[in-house]
Amino acid sequence: MSKLDPDRSVSGGELPLSLASARRLSLYLRALEIFRREGAQKVSSGQLGEALGVSDAQVRKDLGSLGNLGQPGIGYSTAELITAIRKALGIDREWKAVMVGVGNLARALIRYRGFQQQGFRLAALCDIDPSKIGEKVEGLTVQPLAELSAAVKAAGAELGIVTVPAEAAQSVADQLVAAGVRGILNFAPTVLKLPAGVSLVAVDLAAQLEQLAFLVQWSARDR
Amino acid sequence: MSKLDPDRSVSGGELPLSLASARRLSLYLRALEIFRREGAQKVSSGQLGEALGVSDAQVRKDLGSLGNLGQPGIGYSTAELITAIRKALGIDREWKAVMVGVGNLARALIRYRGFQQQGFRLAALCDIDPSKIGEKVEGLTVQPLAELSAAVKAAGAELGIVTVPAEAAQSVADQLVAAGVRGILNFAPTVLKLPAGVSLVAVDLAAQLEQLAFLVQWSARDR
Repeated sequence: MSKLDPDRSVSGGELPLSLASARRLSLYLRALEIFRREGAQKVSSGQLGEALGVSDAQVRKDLGSLGNLGQPGIGYSTAELITAIRKALGIDREWKAVMVGVGNLARALIRYRGFQQQGFRLAALCDIDPSKIGEKVEGLTVQPLAELSAAVKAAGAELGIVTVPAEAAQSVADQLVAAGVRGILNFAPTVLKLPAGVSLVAVDLAAQLEQLAFLVQWSARDR
Repeated sequence: MSKLDPDRSVSGGELPLSLASARRLSLYLRALEIFRREGAQKVSSGQLGEALGVSDAQVRKDLGSLGNLGQPGIGYSTAELITAIRKALGIDREWKAVMVGVGNLARALIRYRGFQQQGFRLAALCDIDPSKIGEKVEGLTVQPLAELSAAVKAAGAELGIVTVPAEAAQSVADQLVAAGVRGILNFAPTVLKLPAGVSLVAVDLAAQLEQLAFLVQWSARDR
């Protein structure tokens, strides 16, 4: 699996469900939270499929991997399904993260409600720029990059979020790994090399826009 | 394909290569640009595979879909391969985009070198907040949301980038579609519904962190 999807590598063997299914679980979760806010105690596979643009059958298959949850003709309990998905994704507990690089993107991410809502807590911020060190951002004080290892340990952070320029990203990743983080979310537009046992998800923003150009170009030619 | 991958929908028929291959092409492109900067005129499938963490065979298969480019024992011309990938992805020309929502994330994206390097040009900025209207950000003046349609047309923008809060995202997307954009890059943490013929790529930042938690959790259990 990791060989075929360079953005997402896992070491140590089989995942309990495919990464594509895990990705859809995140989207089901987002849709279910909206249904819950709207007061829906039950949802059907048809409603979830419509919300995501996938077939009923795909919804039932994806959710079937979580255990015996739905009832034919009645649907799924919204609350039960939310709990089951959070457990399958591993977000039924808090994850602490350290962020390295406190630029505009980092500031946007720090204020991004979605992270906290899903159980992620930013526990430390580091930057190399002396003018940023000591600055308070949303209650956290920016620490010098030289103190990254101590910051990771003091915060008990398991995840690192890398928002430094491409040139600095591999060195920062190496320092995060040495400090003991188990996974890195990389926003720098470069390919990071991490040792086995440390997971990586890369968010390549230019690649996302490239995907969009690709879709628009080819959907136009087909018409 | 669009039925199985709700983030990326295409209307009008078959894509010339799978979305997973297109995604890898973006990553090959990033690696090739590094090889070119380092002065490498030729690259092998092995070097590209190593840079991305995929097999030589996968590289040859992906690049084979672009035509007869590599030579056994010699490898690929770096420059030729960059040109061929840019053409396949549809980024061998400029794409103009309008951005709606000028918060921290937008400011980070506006300054993100990767977009311009790949041929994307931000041509207009809109926001609903009166205190932001008229502000200059990297040479562009923030325009009122009420003038979105005129801004899209004046700029000749084909793509929309949505960085507004979740509650406002569908309405903004509808306005972008009405104004004639052909594709939307959505950063709002919500599922957008778009009509056939308008492509969508969703960047769900919380989902990316969820994927990382999922990988870290399961790689730990397997050890």
